[in-house]
Amino acid sequence: MGLNASFEPHPDLEPLRFLLGTWRGEGAGGYPTIDPFTYGEEMRFEDVGDRYLLYGQSSWTLDGGDPVHFERGFLRPGTDAGSVELTLAHPLGLAEVGEGRVDATTMSIESDRVTRTGTGDAVTALRRRYVVRGDVLTYEIDMAMDETAMTRHLTAELRRTEP
Amino acid sequence: MGLNASFEPHPDLEPLRFLLGTWRGEGAGGYPTIDPFTYGEEMRFEDVGDRYLLYGQSSWTLDGGDPVHFERGFLRPGTDAGSVELTLAHPLGLAEVGEGRVDATTMSIESDRVTRTGTGDAVTALRRRYVVRGDVLTYEIDMAMDETAMTRHLTAELRRTEP
Repeated sequence: MGLNASFEPHPDLEPLRFLLGTWRGEGAGGYPTIDPFTYGEEMRFEDVGDRYLLYGQSSWTLDGGDPVHFERGFLRPGTDAGSVELTLAHPLGLAEVGEGRVDATTMSIESDRVTRTGTGDAVTALRRRYVVRGDVLTYEIDMAMDETAMTRHLTAELRRTEP
Repeated sequence: MGLNASFEPHPDLEPLRFLLGTWRGEGAGGYPTIDPFTYGEEMRFEDVGDRYLLYGQSSWTLDGGDPVHFERGFLRPGTDAGSVELTLAHPLGLAEVGEGRVDATTMSIESDRVTRTGTGDAVTALRRRYVVRGDVLTYEIDMAMDETAMTRHLTAELRRTEP
């Protein structure tokens, strides 16, 4: 016994369905305070039959498979058509709340409410943009920190490996 | 290629290792504003070789397996021995940052920084207590909302099904 896998998709999720599935690929990162780096990544957007999607991301070093980063959270429609809300946890001692828009197969989210634990990273805001073209997903993430204004942090290109 | 599954556990995680594994069982919920309910649940604490654990929880109705709730996030040691930090996302439009203590096989966490999306639930704080005895995990979660002071919300008993 567990979660029922046979359900009717929630009609409010229609605008987000282009994201569904498992995506794998590679990305590149940088920031004024760190050396540039590359990573392998798997991302998953999952429908469980309620009015939200489960979102998860895992990334690793390309030369040894060591953990780079994880994100775990949820996407759901907001108040009006095309709006989207994000709640997200990071292992860096950060929790993120974002709001944005979906336009066809592009999703843009601004997270200016980032809270942190006592030892959490000094991130203050994130700006996310995901674009899907067929079975290719590209994204760009900008980040602001206590001492650094909003700056490009990550770009990646992933391919859908499972629906 | 993906995450390397063979790694040395991070020594700082030693105090949290009693949580590791997959746990399944049942719980009961209530709150002044809702009818009492019961649920099935699976919870997982996962080590990926870095200085944090991945935490996830899924719950469902006992009569049909419909989704009840999900939590996705991370636990990591804080600044001093026995301290623990939690970052967590909920599908209810909530993100949570908590801090607490681990004492042998009891973990207590207070989350008084809960942020919400525009349509997020009116939760303001959570108090969590997890106790492991052998292969049995019990927990109690209290919740405060805009209009309701901190009140018992959930209790559950789970058994470890995988290490």
